[in-house]
Amino acid sequence: MSRYLDDFVVGEIYRTSGRKRVTAEEIKRFAQEYDPQPFHLDEAAARGSFFGELAASGWHTAGMTMRLLVDSDFKAANGLIGAGFEDLRWPRPVRPGDELRVETEVLEVRASSSRPDIGLVKVRMTTLNQNGEAVQIGVCNLVVPTR
Amino acid sequence: MSRYLDDFVVGEIYRTSGRKRVTAEEIKRFAQEYDPQPFHLDEAAARGSFFGELAASGWHTAGMTMRLLVDSDFKAANGLIGAGFEDLRWPRPVRPGDELRVETEVLEVRASSSRPDIGLVKVRMTTLNQNGEAVQIGVCNLVVPTR
Repeated sequence: MSRYLDDFVVGEIYRTSGRKRVTAEEIKRFAQEYDPQPFHLDEAAARGSFFGELAASGWHTAGMTMRLLVDSDFKAANGLIGAGFEDLRWPRPVRPGDELRVETEVLEVRASSSRPDIGLVKVRMTTLNQNGEAVQIGVCNLVVPTR
Repeated sequence: MSRYLDDFVVGEIYRTSGRKRVTAEEIKRFAQEYDPQPFHLDEAAARGSFFGELAASGWHTAGMTMRLLVDSDFKAANGLIGAGFEDLRWPRPVRPGDELRVETEVLEVRASSSRPDIGLVKVRMTTLNQNGEAVQIGVCNLVVPTR
């Protein structure tokens, strides 16, 4: 369903029905290209690191979160376009075998003062693992068209 | 060079010597896996979209920024570990043919009150294209070990 600015209501919570199961192979493949640090690439090196165990790059977690959202029915009429994040945190690492889902809560709906064709929808996107623990929390302003 | 908390000085600016040239093929390949929206996948669809032209996913820009930093000598002794971002924006899109580099300014150096072995270094990371225009600005707290 394609939503316009008016269709977003403060307090609504959208939940992805999709789940993303994370493998060690995917963690390493992402890291090789975008974040080649030992604790994202190699189990043995990770054991002696800050993380204690192989952990996904935070940017990999962000990418998997985005994919879950794009595949969900949380969509504005122009797609999912973020102007930016006011806050983006990774409270705990993503490990091989984790199963991720996303909850998105609408915090604010604002018309633009300068552009009548668009507005901003502020949302909190929380990525959760199979134990219901947050692995990423982001507060984002989405660019949404008016009707 | 591996740096500890004491080695970071407020006001210092680090510049990546590396440059990342972005191709349309890479933009589409990242999008297929992590952000499969038409304006990141297809030139014709992008022309009718908010972006007007093929544009990299913001998460792709974030990943390329991370790679430039990991390959640079801006490194703490434990690697580059971000606790989170206070602000993360994409002021303009990354296009095919763009050439990216990163400037990192140290904003704040703080010891941890609860853990004597680590501290936080707050930095502003600005990703610039070949025209010196910012394509990503992030204010991040890095977890850095004490000596």
